[in-house]
Amino acid sequence: MTLRNGKEFLMIPGPTNVPEEVLRAMHRPAVDIYEGPLLETTGFCLHGLQRLFRTEGKTYIYAANGHGAWDAALCNTLKRGDKVLVLESGRFALGWGEAANVLDLDIEVLPGAWDKGVDPAHLQERLKQDTAHEIKAILVVQVDTASGVWNDIAALRKAIDAASHPALFMVDTIASLGCMPFEMDAWGVDVALTGSQKGLMCPPGLSFVAAGPKADLAHETAELRTNYTDWTFRQGPEHYQKYCGTPPEHLLFAFHKALDLIFEEGLEKTWHRHALLGEATRRAVTVWAEKGAVDFNITDAHARSNSVTVVRFNEGDVAALRTFTKEVCGVTIGGTIGELSGKGIRIAHMGHVNAVMLLGTLSSIELGFQKLGIPHGRGGVQAAMDYLAGAL
Amino acid sequence: MTLRNGKEFLMIPGPTNVPEEVLRAMHRPAVDIYEGPLLETTGFCLHGLQRLFRTEGKTYIYAANGHGAWDAALCNTLKRGDKVLVLESGRFALGWGEAANVLDLDIEVLPGAWDKGVDPAHLQERLKQDTAHEIKAILVVQVDTASGVWNDIAALRKAIDAASHPALFMVDTIASLGCMPFEMDAWGVDVALTGSQKGLMCPPGLSFVAAGPKADLAHETAELRTNYTDWTFRQGPEHYQKYCGTPPEHLLFAFHKALDLIFEEGLEKTWHRHALLGEATRRAVTVWAEKGAVDFNITDAHARSNSVTVVRFNEGDVAALRTFTKEVCGVTIGGTIGELSGKGIRIAHMGHVNAVMLLGTLSSIELGFQKLGIPHGRGGVQAAMDYLAGAL
Amino acid sequence: MTLRNGKEFLMIPGPTNVPEEVLRAMHRPAVDIYEGPLLETTGFCLHGLQRLFRTEGKTYIYAANGHGAWDAALCNTLKRGDKVLVLESGRFALGWGEAANVLDLDIEVLPGAWDKGVDPAHLQERLKQDTAHEIKAILVVQVDTASGVWNDIAALRKAIDAASHPALFMVDTIASLGCMPFEMDAWGVDVALTGSQKGLMCPPGLSFVAAGPKADLAHETAELRTNYTDWTFRQGPEHYQKYCGTPPEHLLFAFHKALDLIFEEGLEKTWHRHALLGEATRRAVTVWAEKGAVDFNITDAHARSNSVTVVRFNEGDVAALRTFTKEVCGVTIGGTIGELSGKGIRIAHMGHVNAVMLLGTLSSIELGFQKLGIPHGRGGVQAAMDYLAGAL
Amino acid sequence: MTLRNGKEFLMIPGPTNVPEEVLRAMHRPAVDIYEGPLLETTGFCLHGLQRLFRTEGKTYIYAANGHGAWDAALCNTLKRGDKVLVLESGRFALGWGEAANVLDLDIEVLPGAWDKGVDPAHLQERLKQDTAHEIKAILVVQVDTASGVWNDIAALRKAIDAASHPALFMVDTIASLGCMPFEMDAWGVDVALTGSQKGLMCPPGLSFVAAGPKADLAHETAELRTNYTDWTFRQGPEHYQKYCGTPPEHLLFAFHKALDLIFEEGLEKTWHRHALLGEATRRAVTVWAEKGAVDFNITDAHARSNSVTVVRFNEGDVAALRTFTKEVCGVTIGGTIGELSGKGIRIAHMGHVNAVMLLGTLSSIELGFQKLGIPHGRGGVQAAMDYLAGAL
Repeated sequence: MTLRNGKEFLMIPGPTNVPEEVLRAMHRPAVDIYEGPLLETTGFCLHGLQRLFRTEGKTYIYAANGHGAWDAALCNTLKRGDKVLVLESGRFALGWGEAANVLDLDIEVLPGAWDKGVDPAHLQERLKQDTAHEIKAILVVQVDTASGVWNDIAALRKAIDAASHPALFMVDTIASLGCMPFEMDAWGVDVALTGSQKGLMCPPGLSFVAAGPKADLAHETAELRTNYTDWTFRQGPEHYQKYCGTPPEHLLFAFHKALDLIFEEGLEKTWHRHALLGEATRRAVTVWAEKGAVDFNITDAHARSNSVTVVRFNEGDVAALRTFTKEVCGVTIGGTIGELSGKGIRIAHMGHVNAVMLLGTLSSIELGFQKLGIPHGRGGVQAAMDYLAGAL
Repeated sequence: MTLRNGKEFLMIPGPTNVPEEVLRAMHRPAVDIYEGPLLETTGFCLHGLQRLFRTEGKTYIYAANGHGAWDAALCNTLKRGDKVLVLESGRFALGWGEAANVLDLDIEVLPGAWDKGVDPAHLQERLKQDTAHEIKAILVVQVDTASGVWNDIAALRKAIDAASHPALFMVDTIASLGCMPFEMDAWGVDVALTGSQKGLMCPPGLSFVAAGPKADLAHETAELRTNYTDWTFRQGPEHYQKYCGTPPEHLLFAFHKALDLIFEEGLEKTWHRHALLGEATRRAVTVWAEKGAVDFNITDAHARSNSVTVVRFNEGDVAALRTFTKEVCGVTIGGTIGELSGKGIRIAHMGHVNAVMLLGTLSSIELGFQKLGIPHGRGGVQAAMDYLAGAL
Repeated sequence: MTLRNGKEFLMIPGPTNVPEEVLRAMHRPAVDIYEGPLLETTGFCLHGLQRLFRTEGKTYIYAANGHGAWDAALCNTLKRGDKVLVLESGRFALGWGEAANVLDLDIEVLPGAWDKGVDPAHLQERLKQDTAHEIKAILVVQVDTASGVWNDIAALRKAIDAASHPALFMVDTIASLGCMPFEMDAWGVDVALTGSQKGLMCPPGLSFVAAGPKADLAHETAELRTNYTDWTFRQGPEHYQKYCGTPPEHLLFAFHKALDLIFEEGLEKTWHRHALLGEATRRAVTVWAEKGAVDFNITDAHARSNSVTVVRFNEGDVAALRTFTKEVCGVTIGGTIGELSGKGIRIAHMGHVNAVMLLGTLSSIELGFQKLGIPHGRGGVQAAMDYLAGAL
Repeated sequence: MTLRNGKEFLMIPGPTNVPEEVLRAMHRPAVDIYEGPLLETTGFCLHGLQRLFRTEGKTYIYAANGHGAWDAALCNTLKRGDKVLVLESGRFALGWGEAANVLDLDIEVLPGAWDKGVDPAHLQERLKQDTAHEIKAILVVQVDTASGVWNDIAALRKAIDAASHPALFMVDTIASLGCMPFEMDAWGVDVALTGSQKGLMCPPGLSFVAAGPKADLAHETAELRTNYTDWTFRQGPEHYQKYCGTPPEHLLFAFHKALDLIFEEGLEKTWHRHALLGEATRRAVTVWAEKGAVDFNITDAHARSNSVTVVRFNEGDVAALRTFTKEVCGVTIGGTIGELSGKGIRIAHMGHVNAVMLLGTLSSIELGFQKLGIPHGRGGVQAAMDYLAGAL
């Protein structure tokens, strides 16, 4: 018997639930690209990105996904053969490193793990060894959706400073921007990038890059430029140059509306909403974990993301649980990927998510545990409610 | 602090959550009304109504709400001054009676209550007294959203038969069709009516009437006809006659799609989904009621609707609770109306509702109880989950 | 070979082209009917109707089509057996009379024709004969889409006044409101009504009635009331009473947006746009008519509507022409109805119509004449352009 | 006075009019990217691209605009320093060459002009001189929207063959695919690319590349690869690899629907529709040109595109004309760009365009000529109709 027919939600770490208003904003005819309201939209979005990234640096909009933004960050700032230090803490920083490798950059991975965040002391130590300053860029993700980790970007910056190292500090905020605090200028991030389809609540297909002064300087001598990603061209006077060609209009209409929604809520309040929903989720998981069958992937409680919680299964049929929540209850939760593939679930609480959605999702999971006989501590949803009753 | 920003939904007893597919079906240009695809749509909808009402009788589509359908049922079958027996069990049958009164019909109310269903024995007794058969029609609602009652239509029919009474048996299924079993022909209902905006998951603005052979016969000598509601005209050969004028095209596109969704799920399965969601809700309410502050409005457990549950508050701030679930959690639950106005809540579980929505809603309510200090038995959501784990 | 694949539009006299913005306004979840933004929408729409009708009288919104509004106007003001004078000038006033007949009103038709407007002198003469003032209401349409006629409502009012006759003056503006000047209060109209789907650019399913002081007075002793149409109930304090039941929310969202568009353009400018498009159409038809095969249905040039032009065919295959414009060119033009059925076309230029649509439509028709060998004066589109070049 | 309020069209050479069905296809929630219906969509789109390009080669979908596809074609097949021959015939092949230059390719331009197509003999001659086969790739556009030229790709291929030259033949079909015949395999094209927003009727944001066997071979030793564009990675087994990251779901939903529409019409019929609309436009322009104030940009009648017609103004206020058609009539026509900037108009007849739209557009332009006193031969629209009457 299925109870699926109703509003289905997508509680996966991207793409996320697109607000009605955002979908509606895309449902309109195309417009002229040389004049008229699209030019205002471009201005609004570029400035809105500065507000999101908390920077006075330059911002760029790409018709591309996050992987496209990875390339854009690298191509615009580095030279062939430059050494790049990749801070491991899951899957995606490594993926960015692989992308760098394709560009003939020299990749070094600072070894990390899937169950914890990058250790600032470890970074500092490695940088101190690099007395010749061969490392030209440091790549890290703020949140890794594969592991569920949150990296402390401010702390990593301090480690770099403590080592007096001049490398560009590049941060992938794809799974965190609009969900957790990010302060590009205050934290000294040189290049930040993100995508449209997670905390920013838009359809996938846009990605964004912000560049600070040190990145601008590096850009002047960059040797990996491609026409499509080139910042210099995109700073040109013509409107189409901002996109190096035809602007992705409908996605821009969507992004404009999503920015409206975020700024209407207030960015700090958006962060706080994610903090409460994230903690409510963790309270439920903590209870469920009592029987030992399931547990947090991230062992360090401090390093758990407010945008996604990764739960490892020591026993129990993961696929059956995901099928149950989706086909019986009407909510899709994420499966784990990469080296955790098949070994757990990913509960996303990022973007357009409110209490009723989260509590319904947690209830569906706990119901699935019961129905499928997966050992779990009873009362996870109750714990989430207890927490929220106190925190709200 | 609000956790509202996400997919909001509407757990009120109409209008209900409109499926994405249904909204999308309306988002299209108008079409010709004299030829082309609209004619097929009309045929599909009229036949689909037969499948919904479970009848081989004639079906009619009105651009009107349910109150318009009330008039249509009366005007097409009765004469000025006819006596009509109204079976009280909440608010809406009385409302139908008031509508009859405006039409100069002679109204008699079979007294009932807001906390139970119509008593078949009581009806039988009254009909037996009417040896002159002055009563020409009996009006009843299958479900009353004001009280949350479900009336046993089959049992009422038996009572009429036991009294060998010839009155037309008219049933308002506005709050039940597509949610709970209804068998127009098998149960001997002469006129049934409903609206688009509850179990049928469409925007409001359409209502539907089905007429069996006895009603057709009565129609021949009806004296309250209006042009707009007249069945005879609507049976004419021209397409526009089916609607007595311009068809409400976009609402028909919506209704066509909603019928597709219902038949795709399977009507019996739709009923079963509502049965499970209704019972899960009742399990939660039963627990919450343990402290005496809140309770079911309907005392007879057998007479509680699967489409809406009305909960009376003996103490606690109803308005604060509804504001909390809406503005903090993102889900709108109904307030009570009529003589219960301000005294409780109405939790709708009708139409496009799945497990994740219901569990999220129940959790939001229980969270509200906690946050606002409204006395309640702890573990209502848990009880709902326990029930579903066993029933699914 | 077909050149159909592109934006198709509908140049029929209702339903008309629905603006993108209006469709988009409907594409949203249902909302609560007891509180929140819907109440503001109701207020805006009721007041907007006053601005459209140019009245300080009361306005009513019906979930119904125009035929429903006919009933509402009659039921709220008249008594059984009252005499009603129907001013013939095509099909629809007669239809309204037939509706009155169903309500047991006593109908008298002031004979007219399909090729001209109602003659004020003729009306005055008839009313003078009615010294006993048996006639209680006079029914007329401002524009009849079947014949294409425009009636001079101000002149008809003067005729009534000249006869010092107290009958209620009721005007159907379904095919004219928002297209041609209408001044309910200034012209002394007692009841005016219209529908959503023509000049008002909305999906069909809503109709509107406005009542002046004399109608209000008549309402007090009206004896044909039905619950659904009753003005007294609809003036009650509860929001749902404005609709006698569940408000047709999505259609109201649409109507709100359509009003926004009209008021943004400016009602007088909307009228002027229709005047120019109407005259451009007539210039084309005048040229086409030179060969005698086609001609205006309305012989009196003064009485041709700015919202629709009816063209009679003395020779030529009407069906083939309509098929050609629709299936080869992508534009649907109306066929004639009623006693003109099959004998001509109806070119609508009402509602959401601009110059490019009209010129494209006229070109498609003239192309059809050429392709199908229907005799016509060459240069109709050229004449339309010549006119517009001078008039703009 | 404006007659703008109605369905507005966009008759510019991209983005073009997006069909209602395509917009509607995007108006839906995001879906999972790892499993479910999106995988079928990907398969359908990749295969549909083969049908559009007429190839059995591999196809790739990029979240990017056409400039992104330029890079993809080059990066996947060439080595740093390779010589590339750019065939000039307007603006866009040169733009592609500039993109190649950014990638450190060695660019040589085969000089051409803005008013004619590439001369095959000229190409053959140059290639024969390249006895060392230093030229590794030849870049050309099938249609250049800046000049309005159509290049004869089959003839250019013959020229290459006649010179027995092994260079890769790369064709940009951004402004022609889905509008004019293109036969990738039959004509021996090695790499073809296009965008979503012109003949393919979708919102901008997607671009597509097809690669034949010779391109696949070159790919093996390509040295300009970037991670985001790399074909090898995109041929990997995981679904996300097809997009190198998150698929641009909503644009894919749109593209799927657009392919449905094209294949439903039939690709050859789509070409034929464009041929008729293109010639009708040219007939009008030919008449308008009689007074010498305006004329075709492309002097060689054989080389005029069926997707866009560029008209140069020798006198007359171009800006005023474009403002008139847009703000008075409701249709946006393109302005000229590049070295023709401000000197003429571009009338697009590509994608979702039917006869009524085109005739309305031509009428609006001719009306503008009249209104603004721009000298022109009278009867351009008439000539277009005369042509279509004979050709249909």
